[in-house]
Amino acid sequence: MKKMTKNLKYIFEPKSVAIVGASSTANSVGNILMKNLVDGKFPGAIYPINPKYKEILGVKCHNKLTDIKGRLDCVIIVTPAVIVPEIMKDCAKKKVGGIILITSGFEEVGRQDLAKQVKDIAEKNDIPVIGPNCLGVLNPYTKVDSIFLPVYKLGRPKPGSIAFVTQSGAVGSAITDLAAYYGIGISKFISYGNATVLDESDYLEYLLEDKETETIILYMEGAKDGRKLLETMKKVNKVKPIIVLKAGKGKGGQAAARSHTGNIAGSNMAYTAAFRQAKVTEADGINELFDFVKMFSQPKQEGKRIGVITNGGGMGVLTADYIEKEGLELAEFSETTKSELKKLLPSYGNVGNPLDLVADSGVNAYEKAVDIMNNAPEVDILVIIVLFQTPPIDERIVHVLTRVSDDRNKPVATISVGGEYTEAYRKILESNNVPNFNSPSGAIKAVGKWVEYSKYSGHLREK
Amino acid sequence: MKKMTKNLKYIFEPKSVAIVGASSTANSVGNILMKNLVDGKFPGAIYPINPKYKEILGVKCHNKLTDIKGRLDCVIIVTPAVIVPEIMKDCAKKKVGGIILITSGFEEVGRQDLAKQVKDIAEKNDIPVIGPNCLGVLNPYTKVDSIFLPVYKLGRPKPGSIAFVTQSGAVGSAITDLAAYYGIGISKFISYGNATVLDESDYLEYLLEDKETETIILYMEGAKDGRKLLETMKKVNKVKPIIVLKAGKGKGGQAAARSHTGNIAGSNMAYTAAFRQAKVTEADGINELFDFVKMFSQPKQEGKRIGVITNGGGMGVLTADYIEKEGLELAEFSETTKSELKKLLPSYGNVGNPLDLVADSGVNAYEKAVDIMNNAPEVDILVIIVLFQTPPIDERIVHVLTRVSDDRNKPVATISVGGEYTEAYRKILESNNVPNFNSPSGAIKAVGKWVEYSKYSGHLREK
Repeated sequence: MKKMTKNLKYIFEPKSVAIVGASSTANSVGNILMKNLVDGKFPGAIYPINPKYKEILGVKCHNKLTDIKGRLDCVIIVTPAVIVPEIMKDCAKKKVGGIILITSGFEEVGRQDLAKQVKDIAEKNDIPVIGPNCLGVLNPYTKVDSIFLPVYKLGRPKPGSIAFVTQSGAVGSAITDLAAYYGIGISKFISYGNATVLDESDYLEYLLEDKETETIILYMEGAKDGRKLLETMKKVNKVKPIIVLKAGKGKGGQAAARSHTGNIAGSNMAYTAAFRQAKVTEADGINELFDFVKMFSQPKQEGKRIGVITNGGGMGVLTADYIEKEGLELAEFSETTKSELKKLLPSYGNVGNPLDLVADSGVNAYEKAVDIMNNAPEVDILVIIVLFQTPPIDERIVHVLTRVSDDRNKPVATISVGGEYTEAYRKILESNNVPNFNSPSGAIKAVGKWVEYSKYSGHLREK
Repeated sequence: MKKMTKNLKYIFEPKSVAIVGASSTANSVGNILMKNLVDGKFPGAIYPINPKYKEILGVKCHNKLTDIKGRLDCVIIVTPAVIVPEIMKDCAKKKVGGIILITSGFEEVGRQDLAKQVKDIAEKNDIPVIGPNCLGVLNPYTKVDSIFLPVYKLGRPKPGSIAFVTQSGAVGSAITDLAAYYGIGISKFISYGNATVLDESDYLEYLLEDKETETIILYMEGAKDGRKLLETMKKVNKVKPIIVLKAGKGKGGQAAARSHTGNIAGSNMAYTAAFRQAKVTEADGINELFDFVKMFSQPKQEGKRIGVITNGGGMGVLTADYIEKEGLELAEFSETTKSELKKLLPSYGNVGNPLDLVADSGVNAYEKAVDIMNNAPEVDILVIIVLFQTPPIDERIVHVLTRVSDDRNKPVATISVGGEYTEAYRKILESNNVPNFNSPSGAIKAVGKWVEYSKYSGHLREK
């Protein structure tokens, strides 16, 4: 698979893309794919293929792949399953770079015969195939986009450093949409469906070498080759952290997974053991996954002493609870730190950790508290709770929070809970690379996982 | 306290409100309070009290309370702590109905002497006092509003059936803001701070009799009288479900709680035992609390057999996992149900539970699937996953989901995950009383808690 994995560059960085099954019918898969490439300003050549049309969206349409003159890097197939083997033979004749096979109707409905043909043709001709039964790929850097969901319904994230590898198109696209909403950038999106030719391990190998990717998210229901996955996760996770969400844990879920992507979800215990052995970070659900991703872009930190700043006492109390629950620590402030912090509080105020600036506090108090804790050697991590509802908090808080996050000195997590007004600021913070969480529990769990991974990778460094 | 609790009606349904410490200074507490009453169109008389001004926002200002002619139902106090006892004596002279004491600087900063004076004057004159060190109350039905946070920063929920009782203003207001954002209605908001005169048990007693309240949320750090709380929770929870979020569980959190509201958070084990004994529903964090609230407005259901509908396979797999994890069950469809559902699927489709309608499915398939499961006796609860990103899902889905929720036959939970477009629909659903969750785990946990409470209250009914 080595050569095939290497050839994935033709799919992720194509100079030309053909869509077999392109269509003029509004809201059809073949039409949305065309729109997304044309409207998304894909800079390379676009070749719709369909004998029914002369042109689609103003782009010349060909009868078949072999009619195209010149090199074809990436072929997206959305035709019915039964004719896919024939199209793949044309791909082999044209020596295309790679195939995104969107079409469903293979292993997941018992058509192992069709799946075997796909696999054989791909392997014989060294053509990497993503899918079948998938959404394919999105690369915001090169603007290749095979997600057949309209852009107005599913936002496309900006270029960034997070790669998504997902067996389920639905789960992957929902998380991608969330990332776009909060302005979080991604490097690659890969929805791989039935994994008939290339599997999750192959994509992990590819991303290990991908210079844009720093963190990898993996959603999976079942691996065909568990041993291969374990070895690959071990190798990749040492260099780039992998956050995994494993579905199909119970009996009902396993049955559902079988008819979903044709994969056997396998023993839950075996997976959990493998994840532990590879030291990958396992998320329990979509919200945790998303929380972890935010924190994993922060500077590494093996220390676990946290300084908490808040303008709402109750939020501080809840945060302190979770810090203890997750095995982290509230930093014990030195006398120097205490006396500096004391100056920020009203005469009756107590210097505690959490430091409660109280609801009367404005941005200046935050700025000073952040600087003091950032300089305090007894503080490893900053957790800053900002309730935007209080009158003295204005937009200058964004400057304070982005500055402390930008200096990359200590990891920073911010927490804000609220409605319309707060959500607007949460998005501004996120799109400026300041991790913001909508609950103390989510924030602190993510901090805990990041300290754990930092320790593991630090330990590797020492060897 | 009986009489005092009864007198709370003067605070929640006042015909007149005085604000002692009202101000013309923009963004000051005394100014925001005036604005919120005036702009919020409070229909009763408003009396600003401050010797510095002749009028505030066009409303005549009085020097002191005793200058006001006529009956005073509710007095909001925002002056410095030291002069509060004097003002309360004026309140006693005027025989006011009740006091909301916003001012801080009592037990939480070691001024037990001042707190004792407040308590003595209140008890001697039978005046209910909410606070001190609190945000006070919001009643969307009568438009009384003492939350000193601007409306553009903190949304006010519409009238509804959920009451919030919160020791922390920050936590309570953040959740209130979230409720407003999603169009969830509330009956009463009570931020009670130090609980110097009335405590959480008194508010629970009041809400038990309150005809607008059906579900009660309680955020607390520590109770002064644990035995009283246990007995009250037992009594109230039998009639109206209580969802509790207890902070100050760890050592760090307990220390923070002490300086926050002057309360001793107490042994975590004792609280957990008390909650179990009273059969109240305990939430682990803000997100869980909010998830539970949504589900607790659904019809009661003691059965735990769930029918799941989805247009995204992976979301179905995750949901099935959580159903098993929470001790619920995937319904086993009868042959009749199966043959009806079969008609909705493409020829290769499998009738499973979760029923995967696949991404090609439109609103008609949803409508039929919902009706079939709603009529199937082997299904107790409907969990409907709708990924709004797929092309065939249009706005008619709102009609389908509100109709099934409105018929109040079986509890319904819907799940949608995504960005801008999805969030818009999530808000539409919520504001039409269709519970919508942004993760399978959150939804299923809430369903589990609702079945648990339904069983408990059903068991009571049989006696």
